[in-house]
Amino acid sequence: MSTYTLSTSVPRPFADTVEMVRTALADQGFGILTEIDMQATLKAKLEVDVPPQVILGACRPALAHQALLADPSIAALLPCNVVVRAVDDETTAVETFDPDFMAGLVDNEAFRTVATDGHERLMNMLTSLSKEA
Amino acid sequence: MSTYTLSTSVPRPFADTVEMVRTALADQGFGILTEIDMQATLKAKLEVDVPPQVILGACRPALAHQALLADPSIAALLPCNVVVRAVDDETTAVETFDPDFMAGLVDNEAFRTVATDGHERLMNMLTSLSKEA
Repeated sequence: MSTYTLSTSVPRPFADTVEMVRTALADQGFGILTEIDMQATLKAKLEVDVPPQVILGACRPALAHQALLADPSIAALLPCNVVVRAVDDETTAVETFDPDFMAGLVDNEAFRTVATDGHERLMNMLTSLSKEA
Repeated sequence: MSTYTLSTSVPRPFADTVEMVRTALADQGFGILTEIDMQATLKAKLEVDVPPQVILGACRPALAHQALLADPSIAALLPCNVVVRAVDDETTAVETFDPDFMAGLVDNEAFRTVATDGHERLMNMLTSLSKEA
Protein backbone atom coordinates (compact mmCIF):
# COMPACT_ATOMS: atom_id res chain seq x y z
CA MET A 1 0.00 0.00 0.00
CA SER A 2 3.05 2.26 0.25
CA THR A 3 6.74 2.20 -0.61
CA TYR A 4 7.76 1.81 3.02
CA THR A 5 5.43 -0.96 4.19
CA LEU A 6 4.65 -4.63 3.56
CA SER A 7 0.97 -5.49 3.59
CA THR A 8 -1.69 -8.06 2.95
CA SER A 9 -5.47 -8.25 3.02
CA VAL A 10 -7.05 -11.02 5.10
CA PRO A 11 -10.64 -12.16 4.37
CA ARG A 12 -11.53 -12.43 8.06
CA PRO A 13 -13.09 -10.16 10.67
CA PHE A 14 -10.84 -7.79 12.60
CA ALA A 15 -10.75 -9.57 15.99
CA ASP A 16 -9.92 -12.96 14.43
CA THR A 17 -7.16 -11.37 12.37
CA VAL A 18 -5.56 -9.71 15.39
CA GLU A 19 -5.29 -13.12 17.06
CA MET A 20 -3.88 -14.70 13.87
CA VAL A 21 -1.26 -11.94 13.68
CA ARG A 22 -0.21 -12.50 17.31
CA THR A 23 0.30 -16.21 16.63
CA ALA A 24 2.06 -15.63 13.30
CA LEU A 25 4.44 -13.09 14.88
CA ALA A 26 5.29 -15.53 17.68
CA ASP A 27 5.91 -18.24 15.06
CA GLN A 28 8.49 -15.94 13.45
CA GLY A 29 10.21 -15.19 16.75
CA PHE A 30 8.71 -11.76 17.47
CA GLY A 31 7.43 -10.70 20.87
CA ILE A 32 4.89 -7.89 21.15
CA LEU A 33 6.31 -5.10 23.34
CA THR A 34 3.61 -2.47 22.86
CA GLU A 35 0.01 -2.36 21.77
CA ILE A 36 -2.05 0.71 20.90
CA ASP A 37 -5.78 0.59 20.28
CA MET A 38 -6.00 3.56 17.89
CA GLN A 39 -9.80 3.40 17.70
CA ALA A 40 -10.10 3.68 21.50
CA THR A 41 -7.35 6.33 21.74
CA LEU A 42 -8.88 8.61 19.10
CA LYS A 43 -12.36 8.13 20.58
CA ALA A 44 -11.15 8.97 24.09
CA LYS A 45 -8.99 11.95 23.11
CA LEU A 46 -10.85 13.49 20.16
CA GLU A 47 -14.34 11.97 20.24
CA VAL A 48 -13.89 10.81 16.64
CA ASP A 49 -14.92 7.41 15.29
CA VAL A 50 -12.48 5.43 13.17
CA PRO A 51 -12.63 1.73 12.18
CA PRO A 52 -11.04 -0.79 14.56
CA GLN A 53 -7.24 -0.46 14.35
CA VAL A 54 -4.40 -1.64 16.56
CA ILE A 55 -0.67 -0.98 16.29
CA LEU A 56 1.40 -3.87 17.65
CA GLY A 57 5.05 -3.13 18.42
CA ALA A 58 6.84 -6.32 17.36
CA CYS A 59 10.40 -7.01 18.47
CA ARG A 60 12.79 -9.86 17.91
CA PRO A 61 15.38 -8.97 20.58
CA ALA A 62 18.37 -10.45 18.75
CA LEU A 63 17.55 -8.41 15.63
CA ALA A 64 16.90 -5.25 17.66
CA HIS A 65 20.24 -5.64 19.43
CA GLN A 66 22.19 -6.14 16.19
CA ALA A 67 20.35 -3.21 14.58
CA LEU A 68 21.24 -0.90 17.49
CA LEU A 69 24.89 -1.95 17.33
CA ALA A 70 24.91 -1.15 13.60
CA ASP A 71 23.17 2.22 14.01
CA PRO A 72 21.99 3.56 17.41
CA SER A 73 19.62 5.99 15.66
CA ILE A 74 17.52 3.07 14.46
CA ALA A 75 15.93 3.02 17.95
CA ALA A 76 13.68 5.76 16.57
CA LEU A 77 12.17 3.09 14.30
CA LEU A 78 11.87 0.31 16.88
CA PRO A 79 9.93 -1.80 17.64
CA CYS A 80 8.68 -2.77 14.19
CA ASN A 81 5.04 -1.73 13.98
CA VAL A 82 2.47 -4.22 12.74
CA VAL A 83 -0.82 -2.46 12.03
CA VAL A 84 -4.10 -4.39 11.89
CA ARG A 85 -7.14 -2.44 10.71
CA ALA A 86 -10.68 -3.33 9.72
CA VAL A 87 -11.49 -2.61 6.07
CA ASP A 88 -15.05 -3.91 6.44
CA ASP A 89 -16.79 -6.58 8.57
CA GLU A 90 -15.14 -9.41 6.64
CA THR A 91 -11.85 -7.91 5.48
CA THR A 92 -8.87 -6.81 7.51
CA ALA A 93 -5.66 -5.14 6.36
CA VAL A 94 -2.33 -6.07 7.97
CA GLU A 95 0.58 -3.73 7.27
CA THR A 96 4.10 -3.54 8.72
CA PHE A 97 6.97 -1.14 8.37
CA ASP A 98 9.45 -2.76 5.96
CA PRO A 99 12.89 -3.41 7.49
CA ASP A 100 14.35 -3.32 3.97
CA PHE A 101 13.21 0.29 3.77
CA MET A 102 15.17 0.97 6.99
CA ALA A 103 18.23 -0.56 5.34
CA GLY A 104 17.94 2.06 2.60
CA LEU A 105 18.19 4.73 5.31
CA VAL A 106 21.17 3.27 7.12
CA ASP A 107 23.46 2.02 4.33
CA ASN A 108 25.61 -0.20 6.51
CA GLU A 109 26.48 -3.81 5.74
CA ALA A 110 25.80 -5.13 9.25
CA PHE A 111 22.43 -3.43 9.29
CA ARG A 112 21.53 -4.80 5.86
CA THR A 113 21.91 -8.37 7.11
CA VAL A 114 19.59 -7.65 10.04
CA ALA A 115 17.04 -5.94 7.81
CA THR A 116 17.00 -8.83 5.34
CA ASP A 117 16.31 -11.26 8.17
CA GLY A 118 13.54 -9.04 9.57
CA HIS A 119 12.01 -8.53 6.12
CA GLU A 120 11.94 -12.28 5.49
CA ARG A 121 10.31 -13.05 8.84
CA LEU A 122 7.64 -10.40 8.36
CA MET A 123 6.95 -11.62 4.81
CA ASN A 124 6.57 -15.16 6.20
CA MET A 125 4.16 -13.81 8.81
CA LEU A 126 2.03 -12.05 6.17
CA THR A 127 2.08 -15.06 3.85
CA SER A 128 0.96 -17.37 6.66
CA LEU A 129 -2.10 -15.17 7.21
CA SER A 130 -3.21 -15.70 3.59
CA LYS A 131 -2.66 -19.44 3.85
CA GLU A 132 -4.78 -19.81 6.97
CA ALA A 133 -7.55 -17.62 5.62
CA MET B 1 22.81 11.88 14.14
CA SER B 2 21.07 10.54 11.06
CA THR B 3 19.10 11.84 8.08
CA TYR B 4 15.80 10.60 9.49
CA THR B 5 15.98 11.82 13.09
CA LEU B 6 16.15 15.04 15.13
CA SER B 7 18.46 14.92 18.10
CA THR B 8 20.17 16.78 20.86
CA SER B 9 22.68 16.08 23.59
CA VAL B 10 21.73 17.02 27.16
CA PRO B 11 24.47 17.54 29.80
CA ARG B 12 22.48 15.72 32.50
CA PRO B 13 22.25 12.18 33.82
CA PHE B 14 19.89 9.73 32.11
CA ALA B 15 17.11 9.58 34.73
CA ASP B 16 16.84 13.38 35.03
CA THR B 17 16.72 13.69 31.25
CA VAL B 18 13.91 11.15 30.92
CA GLU B 19 11.82 13.24 33.32
CA MET B 20 12.68 16.46 31.45
CA VAL B 21 11.63 14.83 28.17
CA ARG B 22 8.28 13.74 29.65
CA THR B 23 7.56 17.31 30.77
CA ALA B 24 8.77 18.85 27.51
CA LEU B 25 6.60 16.48 25.45
CA ALA B 26 3.53 17.32 27.55
CA ASP B 27 4.30 21.03 27.10
CA GLN B 28 4.16 20.47 23.31
CA GLY B 29 0.86 18.59 23.51
CA PHE B 30 2.17 15.04 23.21
CA GLY B 31 0.96 12.17 25.35
CA ILE B 32 3.13 9.10 25.86
CA LEU B 33 1.28 5.99 24.67
CA THR B 34 4.06 3.42 24.96
CA GLU B 35 7.31 3.05 26.81
CA ILE B 36 10.02 0.46 26.24
CA ASP B 37 12.99 0.03 28.55
CA MET B 38 15.44 -1.33 25.97
CA GLN B 39 18.15 -1.94 28.57
CA ALA B 40 15.81 -4.14 30.65
CA THR B 41 14.35 -5.86 27.57
CA LEU B 42 17.74 -6.81 26.11
CA LYS B 43 19.01 -7.92 29.51
CA ALA B 44 15.94 -10.10 30.12
CA LYS B 45 15.79 -11.63 26.63
CA LEU B 46 19.44 -11.86 25.58
CA GLU B 47 21.46 -11.41 28.79
CA VAL B 48 23.37 -8.55 27.15
CA ASP B 49 24.25 -5.27 28.83
CA VAL B 50 23.59 -2.00 27.01
CA PRO B 51 23.56 1.56 28.43
CA PRO B 52 20.25 2.85 29.84
CA GLN B 53 17.85 3.53 26.95
CA VAL B 54 14.10 4.07 26.73
CA ILE B 55 11.87 4.47 23.70
CA LEU B 56 8.85 6.68 24.42
CA GLY B 57 5.96 6.49 21.95
CA ALA B 58 4.74 10.10 21.74
CA CYS B 59 1.38 10.92 20.23
CA ARG B 60 -0.53 14.14 19.71
CA PRO B 61 -3.94 12.64 18.88
CA ALA B 62 -5.10 15.46 16.59
CA LEU B 63 -1.92 15.12 14.49
CA ALA B 64 -2.16 11.32 14.43
CA HIS B 65 -5.76 11.48 13.26
CA GLN B 66 -4.98 13.94 10.46
CA ALA B 67 -1.96 11.89 9.42
CA LEU B 68 -4.04 8.70 9.21
CA LEU B 69 -6.70 10.47 7.12
CA ALA B 70 -3.97 11.67 4.75
CA ASP B 71 -2.30 8.24 4.49
CA PRO B 72 -3.53 5.18 6.43
CA SER B 73 -0.14 3.47 5.93
CA ILE B 74 1.48 6.04 8.20
CA ALA B 75 0.15 4.01 11.16
CA ALA B 76 3.27 1.88 10.61
CA LEU B 77 5.28 4.92 11.78
CA LEU B 78 3.08 5.91 14.74
CA PRO B 79 3.44 6.85 17.51
CA CYS B 80 6.46 9.09 17.05
CA ASN B 81 9.35 7.53 18.92
CA VAL B 82 11.42 9.66 21.26
CA VAL B 83 14.57 7.80 22.28
CA VAL B 84 16.50 8.74 25.42
CA ARG B 85 19.85 7.02 25.92
CA ALA B 86 22.77 7.47 28.27
CA VAL B 87 26.01 8.48 26.55
CA ASP B 88 27.93 8.60 29.85
CA ASP B 89 27.05 9.39 33.48
CA GLU B 90 26.60 13.08 32.75
CA THR B 91 25.49 13.14 29.14
CA THR B 92 22.26 11.87 27.60
CA ALA B 93 21.21 11.76 23.95
CA VAL B 94 17.60 12.49 22.96
CA GLU B 95 16.59 11.54 19.44
CA THR B 96 13.20 11.43 17.69
CA PHE B 97 12.00 10.24 14.34
CA ASP B 98 11.58 13.35 12.16
CA PRO B 99 8.01 13.90 10.91
CA ASP B 100 9.45 15.89 8.01
CA PHE B 101 11.18 12.72 6.89
CA MET B 102 7.78 10.97 6.89
CA ALA B 103 6.46 13.77 4.68
CA GLY B 104 9.12 12.86 2.13
CA LEU B 105 7.67 9.34 2.07
CA VAL B 106 4.06 10.32 1.70
CA ASP B 107 4.14 13.27 -0.74
CA ASN B 108 0.67 14.53 0.04
CA GLU B 109 -0.21 18.16 0.82
CA ALA B 110 -2.46 17.37 3.81
CA PHE B 111 0.22 15.17 5.30
CA ARG B 112 2.91 17.80 4.77
CA THR B 113 0.97 20.28 6.94
CA VAL B 114 0.69 17.71 9.74
CA ALA B 115 4.37 16.81 9.48
CA THR B 116 5.47 20.45 9.62
CA ASP B 117 3.43 20.93 12.81
CA GLY B 118 4.88 17.75 14.36
CA HIS B 119 8.43 18.69 13.33
CA GLU B 120 8.08 22.14 14.91
CA ARG B 121 6.70 20.76 18.19
CA LEU B 122 9.50 18.18 18.46
CA MET B 123 12.14 20.79 17.66
CA ASN B 124 10.65 23.00 20.41
CA MET B 125 10.81 20.04 22.78
CA LEU B 126 14.49 19.38 21.97
CA THR B 127 15.38 23.07 22.22
CA SER B 128 13.72 23.36 25.62
CA LEU B 129 15.95 20.55 26.91
CA SER B 130 19.09 22.53 26.03
CA LYS B 131 17.69 25.68 27.64
CA GLU B 132 16.94 23.98 30.95
CA ALA B 133 20.26 22.17 31.03
